[in-house]
Amino acid sequence: MSDITALVSKLSGLGFSDAPVEHAPVENVEQWAEALSTVSGLPSEYTLTKTLIFKPKQPKSEAMAPVVVIAKHDSATNAKAIGNELKLKELRFANDDVLTDMFQTAKGSVSPFALANVSKESIANVRVVVDKALLSASNIAFHPLDSSRTVFVSAATLQSFVKSVEGLTHVTEMDFTAEAGTATVAKTEKKPAAAAASADEVAGVSKGGIDVSKDVDFPRWYQQVLTRSDMLEYYDVSGCYIVRPLAYFVWQQIQEFFDAGIRSLGVKNCYFPMFVSSKVLEREKDHIEGFAPEVAWVTRAGSTELAEPIAIRPTSETVMYPYFAKWIRSHRDLPLKINQWCSVVRWEFKNPQPFLRTREFLWQEGHCAYMTEKEAMVEVYDVLTLYRRIYEELLAVPVIEGEKSSKEKFAGGVATTTVEGFIAATGRGIQGATSHYLGQNFSKMFNIVVQDPEDSGADRPKLHVHQTSWGLSTRTIGVMVMTHGDDQGLVMPPRVAETQVIIIPCGLTAKHSDEDRRAVSDACLNVEARLRAVGVRAESDLRELYTPGQKFNHWEVRGVPLRVEIGPKDLEKNSVLTARRDTFAKAPMSLDGLESSVQLMLLTIQNDMLAKARKTFDERVKIVLDWSEFVPVLNSKCLALIPWCEREVCEDQIKTRSSRDSLGDEPEDEKAPSMGAKSLCLPSKQPTNPPIVHGETKCIQCGENAKRYALFGRSY
Amino acid sequence: MSDITALVSKLSGLGFSDAPVEHAPVENVEQWAEALSTVSGLPSEYTLTKTLIFKPKQPKSEAMAPVVVIAKHDSATNAKAIGNELKLKELRFANDDVLTDMFQTAKGSVSPFALANVSKESIANVRVVVDKALLSASNIAFHPLDSSRTVFVSAATLQSFVKSVEGLTHVTEMDFTAEAGTATVAKTEKKPAAAAASADEVAGVSKGGIDVSKDVDFPRWYQQVLTRSDMLEYYDVSGCYIVRPLAYFVWQQIQEFFDAGIRSLGVKNCYFPMFVSSKVLEREKDHIEGFAPEVAWVTRAGSTELAEPIAIRPTSETVMYPYFAKWIRSHRDLPLKINQWCSVVRWEFKNPQPFLRTREFLWQEGHCAYMTEKEAMVEVYDVLTLYRRIYEELLAVPVIEGEKSSKEKFAGGVATTTVEGFIAATGRGIQGATSHYLGQNFSKMFNIVVQDPEDSGADRPKLHVHQTSWGLSTRTIGVMVMTHGDDQGLVMPPRVAETQVIIIPCGLTAKHSDEDRRAVSDACLNVEARLRAVGVRAESDLRELYTPGQKFNHWEVRGVPLRVEIGPKDLEKNSVLTARRDTFAKAPMSLDGLESSVQLMLLTIQNDMLAKARKTFDERVKIVLDWSEFVPVLNSKCLALIPWCEREVCEDQIKTRSSRDSLGDEPEDEKAPSMGAKSLCLPSKQPTNPPIVHGETKCIQCGENAKRYALFGRSY
Repeated sequence: MSDITALVSKLSGLGFSDAPVEHAPVENVEQWAEALSTVSGLPSEYTLTKTLIFKPKQPKSEAMAPVVVIAKHDSATNAKAIGNELKLKELRFANDDVLTDMFQTAKGSVSPFALANVSKESIANVRVVVDKALLSASNIAFHPLDSSRTVFVSAATLQSFVKSVEGLTHVTEMDFTAEAGTATVAKTEKKPAAAAASADEVAGVSKGGIDVSKDVDFPRWYQQVLTRSDMLEYYDVSGCYIVRPLAYFVWQQIQEFFDAGIRSLGVKNCYFPMFVSSKVLEREKDHIEGFAPEVAWVTRAGSTELAEPIAIRPTSETVMYPYFAKWIRSHRDLPLKINQWCSVVRWEFKNPQPFLRTREFLWQEGHCAYMTEKEAMVEVYDVLTLYRRIYEELLAVPVIEGEKSSKEKFAGGVATTTVEGFIAATGRGIQGATSHYLGQNFSKMFNIVVQDPEDSGADRPKLHVHQTSWGLSTRTIGVMVMTHGDDQGLVMPPRVAETQVIIIPCGLTAKHSDEDRRAVSDACLNVEARLRAVGVRAESDLRELYTPGQKFNHWEVRGVPLRVEIGPKDLEKNSVLTARRDTFAKAPMSLDGLESSVQLMLLTIQNDMLAKARKTFDERVKIVLDWSEFVPVLNSKCLALIPWCEREVCEDQIKTRSSRDSLGDEPEDEKAPSMGAKSLCLPSKQPTNPPIVHGETKCIQCGENAKRYALFGRSY
Repeated sequence: MSDITALVSKLSGLGFSDAPVEHAPVENVEQWAEALSTVSGLPSEYTLTKTLIFKPKQPKSEAMAPVVVIAKHDSATNAKAIGNELKLKELRFANDDVLTDMFQTAKGSVSPFALANVSKESIANVRVVVDKALLSASNIAFHPLDSSRTVFVSAATLQSFVKSVEGLTHVTEMDFTAEAGTATVAKTEKKPAAAAASADEVAGVSKGGIDVSKDVDFPRWYQQVLTRSDMLEYYDVSGCYIVRPLAYFVWQQIQEFFDAGIRSLGVKNCYFPMFVSSKVLEREKDHIEGFAPEVAWVTRAGSTELAEPIAIRPTSETVMYPYFAKWIRSHRDLPLKINQWCSVVRWEFKNPQPFLRTREFLWQEGHCAYMTEKEAMVEVYDVLTLYRRIYEELLAVPVIEGEKSSKEKFAGGVATTTVEGFIAATGRGIQGATSHYLGQNFSKMFNIVVQDPEDSGADRPKLHVHQTSWGLSTRTIGVMVMTHGDDQGLVMPPRVAETQVIIIPCGLTAKHSDEDRRAVSDACLNVEARLRAVGVRAESDLRELYTPGQKFNHWEVRGVPLRVEIGPKDLEKNSVLTARRDTFAKAPMSLDGLESSVQLMLLTIQNDMLAKARKTFDERVKIVLDWSEFVPVLNSKCLALIPWCEREVCEDQIKTRSSRDSLGDEPEDEKAPSMGAKSLCLPSKQPTNPPIVHGETKCIQCGENAKRYALFGRSY
């Protein structure tokens, strides 16, 4: 039942008729409660739940017999107790593959309704445990399909549903209350801490900091930093987000830098329609296979059904290339180099994540055509260099340049180059931006040809052009936030910070006269004007009613790189006090030559932020020469550089062998990393100690001859 | 049969199974032939047709008895001869209302299939005439629904179709061949002139000029100028167009200017999702009524049907304002000022027109919230001033500022201010950009409130904020092209021209040495470098194989404001020859101080273009003080400034009385303007001679007291 319409209709057949409510996707029960607290029109009381899938230790020969536990969110669902009750040995959380393959669901989105997805062969082996506490509850909340929706059902509906699952025979009721509290989440009584924080924000000043540590709960930290810094707002269409001015400013800085860069390469901007006819979209088979499951289709306009559904572009290769064929008639029309800034839509069903995986995102896509492979490759790397510079010089985020493996390259292209980033908090790699050499694959499909200029015969052969495409998206912003943010909130690199310097009057007490106050205010405005005159984006926060401390917090959450405090005593000394956001270092600064001192300090902050992030990245990339070290390296939140054979079958094996499922000691902790590692890139700068000796150095996984070092890791 | 699916299924029931082919929308048979010439996979020979709808002179008491003539495109379908044959008096082309209301079609899109749309009551009165020449033709081409699609049917299918129309009794076959040629359009034999032109362009140089005069066939001229200048390309999804670099450059210049302007007003850029849930979209009733018929709906992602269809924004009021309600909690959060650059979708079924009416278009939309009406109104006019400056200072297009009538204002708002442009070639007004005062309508609907800061009581009243929204689109580019273009092609105002100066080596003949040639080339590159150094966008065209004349034409079509010719003789005189695109004036210019001479000349061109367009506009705005002059003024391609009562009922009457239908002498010419006039704006600058005397001056249409002068005209 991967289709919510079918589910809703099934539920309505069970006497349940309300549609699910939509909200921000959630990763745990606290987030769930918080998300629901912002939705209007809910039942006044409701019961949050958890649905857990375990599997017992079994001989490999036996069919898997998973256990689905449907329980109140705070019931003590002890695996051992459940195992004892069901007479099953060593119950452990089932891994992602079981969730995906057997139940067609994903972590965070599991609900009893996933039972309907189990095949007829398997359902007989499934055991269901229902928490008795639910049987007396009303308005029981479940995620019907994914974690961004909630339905409320009665105990009777839940029971009817479980009964309605054909072939399901093992259903047990269990009492967990002996061990745990029984509080029903009452909407008006108990609000999570996060909801309380927004009450503070009503008055225009946010809470002192983020109320969860980056180290403790990274996903929730990320969400809080984005929303409380006013970078991003959750939106009522799942997987879509509002990019607020603070984040959009970063994007405009990136646009300005990149636009100048590609202009100097001779690329011109244009705009192609967002709509694609199905005929055109589906022209290149390999290519479309990669995108088809995620394409959004327009089928209706007003009340008129369209004769043919029209797709929204997931990328524009097949949109643009029929016109390349029209525009390119002679070798003198080459090179053709265009770029567009637009949004594209990929309706992914995996859990969305702001900036990193969203259903609509902003990007640029460049598309060029050349006479020769050589020219095309030069451009592929010129653009890759611009991408690296955006990460390093603008966002202070280090990246590793390299080439994708054949498994990971762009569908339909010949080679994909990439800049790969690293999220230290999770130890996962992240693709930063890619620049593809498409070869002649698309030009053959779309018949983009010119006559051979070298051949002057009457029947000159047609040559297919060599093409490139390359794209960079607002994902950049997410990577920047994850890299630099801390427990106080956002930390903005000065080059892309909308406000680089915030000036705050300080040190004024009841004993100061109005004149003293005016002098301090005037000094703030004067410093602001001096800094603006030299192009520094400075702002004074002269709001009354707020204490300096509240203002410090307000601007710290928003990541302003440098704070300038000005009080009566500072003025006496002809100086100000500066505080760096990245290090919290405080230092006095003379008002004489303030402009260049501030400019220098902003430059220092920018450089220090990159250096710090690079140091972390470098420390976390380990050369691994023996397979036995591979998974431990991943588990220590590092990436592994390994001598590799570059074979796809080996890449698949690496993924399987490094996923939790295959490991001897399965941790009971649901949060332990379970995903397998994939190749991130074949770095352009290869390690030299030890070097790869061709014919001698072996792939650490399969023992075949290694070709190059490859960077492997768990990844986004 | 407004639905193409139904039509296709009907045709397939008649033994016809091919789907219609799609192409650029066309306005006449030449365009049709040209459009089909670019489509592959067509029958090798086909017959183009015309379907004409006439009506005879009849007493008003009689039911209308229209005549539908289905004929070969070149048959001499003489109205008098048809009238004689059918014994009907004074056959005239039916006006647009008959096409729209009775046949549910539109000029340019009429086909026999429109017969299926006629109601049962009316069909009995319809007479159909079929050209005998069609009965022996194969592959007869019709527009099945609109002019951007073509189906090919056999004579038998055509006859079956006509027979299948229930209630249709009067069908006559007529022989028109006695009077006209009979050439079947053979795809390979006869290509229209336009197709030949593109063969020239293959070699990189377009034909000398546009092959139709702006005065003679304005719609076709417009299409040719756009496509042959490489500004725009037709696209295979009807109503969507490719904005090519030359046009996108103009848009980027507008963006840069406007972004700086609104930044100084304190507006910040952001990006909201393009998707809207139906619940949110439909929240404001008045507002959505205006957009509902044009909303595109996504109902499917990959192969999954969505539980709820999701709309693509037609504008973002209802997208953004729920979040305004969240973000604005205190008067200290005001004003809130945001803007976004994005595309919006309005799936109009009227004939699309590049830049002016397209299904997806690029625009910016600003949305602001204020404490008071006064602040909001200041911003409404500040933004309107920026819009006027974009037209006048960047695009050299004069506009008239004013306020929309209550009938023409933005749905859901309180007042709409506008800058109105004028297309002299058609005598029609065109809305340039609008800035709306929304009042508290939306804030009441979305509950965007703050507590009254003036009232310190415990139970402070909530105040609804005052809102504005304002937008400017790529329509600007279309207006610019229509205003300045001439029979040689585009004429670009220097401020927005991607290439401001084109430098072309001239005067080299066979007798010149290689050294002479090099000297000229070097001089060109030197001039280019000198001009670029001072910020002039200059380019040299040193391509070999092309004559100077070919290059002149190439750059003239593309509207480059200034041409610099450099030959051996010029160099001897230390000078160059300049040629202005707007006036074709040629003059020598010394190489000494060339930079400032060129800069001055570009400035002069910019100013002269605006002055010339303003003179035309001024001449064509007539003060009309008596109704008898109103329609003649419109018919002379002018706009009318009339003393007006400002009542909606009167506006409706003006429209009706000025449409061709109501006029005594109906012209037989299908191209005569038939549309009624509507109010364009109530100009901010009111005429003073004679002034409106309140209580004395009467509305020229209804005789009620006039309030202000209003600008009326036919319009886009």
